Amino acid sequence: MSTESTVPAAAGEDSDRRRQFLIDLYGVMAYGELSAFERFSSDARFSPTLHDRAAVGRLAVTEFEHFEAVAAQLEQLGVDVESAMAPFQPSIDAFHDRTRPADWYESLMKAYVTDGVLGDFYLHIAGALDDETQKLVARIKENTEQISMIAARLKQVLADDPRLSSRLALWGRRLVGEALTQAQRIGIERAVLSELMRGQDPDRQAQATEELFAQLTKNHSRRMNDLGLTA
Amino acid sequence: MSTESTVPAAAGEDSDRRRQFLIDLYGVMAYGELSAFERFSSDARFSPTLHDRAAVGRLAVTEFEHFEAVAAQLEQLGVDVESAMAPFQPSIDAFHDRTRPADWYESLMKAYVTDGVLGDFYLHIAGALDDETQKLVARIKENTEQISMIAARLKQVLADDPRLSSRLALWGRRLVGEALTQAQRIGIERAVLSELMRGQDPDRQAQATEELFAQLTKNHSRRMNDLGLTA
Repeated sequence: MSTESTVPAAAGEDSDRRRQFLIDLYGVMAYGELSAFERFSSDARFSPTLHDRAAVGRLAVTEFEHFEAVAAQLEQLGVDVESAMAPFQPSIDAFHDRTRPADWYESLMKAYVTDGVLGDFYLHIAGALDDETQKLVARIKENTEQISMIAARLKQVLADDPRLSSRLALWGRRLVGEALTQAQRIGIERAVLSELMRGQDPDRQAQATEELFAQLTKNHSRRMNDLGLTA
Repeated sequence: MSTESTVPAAAGEDSDRRRQFLIDLYGVMAYGELSAFERFSSDARFSPTLHDRAAVGRLAVTEFEHFEAVAAQLEQLGVDVESAMAPFQPSIDAFHDRTRPADWYESLMKAYVTDGVLGDFYLHIAGALDDETQKLVARIKENTEQISMIAARLKQVLADDPRLSSRLALWGRRLVGEALTQAQRIGIERAVLSELMRGQDPDRQAQATEELFAQLTKNHSRRMNDLGLTA
């Protein structure tokens, strides 16, 4: 796939904006995947069984493979992967520092919540781009199987120890709050969200942002309900 | 590849011993790879640059892919992967607990030393098995590219900060000592090494073990020399 095929040919300023938009989107995704890989693989060691260790390790490795896929896209754009990721490092690191799982169950819940919310967020942003980029982001963020696997394990864990329910429900609320704060900060800092509403008047921009976050919250609530937890 | 093709058909006791031998070999390799994956990926986060984080992440993921390849072999033998790994968990965990890297440089050196020594160890053990198993172990432990990459980065690091030399040389000696102790313990505990010399008289067995460890130490010294360090 050539650079031309992922960035629609357009002349001048518009083309430059679109290119920067793509670089930002891939940059934040790349750093998000790389750091998720490191966090999940570190947590894998504390899994209750060897089977879980292998399963969580596989989740972490999938995140790394996504990182490599996004990094390949940046390289195709002729962009240094490190430079593209660097602007997003402070806010993503801060997110992880504020959401350190206390144990393996919280780590699994963190994977479930953040993969869900961020997946929706990136897919929504990609929706403002051409079909080909949308398909690419969808392929990279395609994690239905992964989310189903985590959901199944969480349901089992909650059935085995019902006392976990209130703790994990509380943790889920904290996680979604932090994830949405992170998404908003990324939008403000890098103009990704405002770029998304580019060309629209300021009132409409605010409304569109509100609608997006309402949708992300709604999808999150549905996923929590799937586990039998109150969002 | 069928089970029959990896375990040569042989009747009775000899076949049972060979089967247990293979299960032990794959079990120790599987747990070794899984735990190496977790340790290296945790350490990746402390890499000095984003480029190093991605490179060390790739090393960790390669270990996980090796784990998956060995686990697939165990499944082909009709063996539960968890049960095959379990006997080796205490000694491998103890090895990691005794060799916690103080920083990223020590983590990189640990990868270099242990991948080298354990690779030689497994290849030697596989040498007592049929051609097909040997090829399989060689393919899984094939890490020339990985070792070269680590060596190149270590050389660069040592050139940038020559004061690291004595610390990393000391660390390398401690690592090889612990790795050889671990290899010996595995041999004693699971009869892998003695199985290797099966059918030979006790004097010859002791001599063969000594020769093996002398060879492992010699190869390690060569790898340390490659870095310009004294083993």
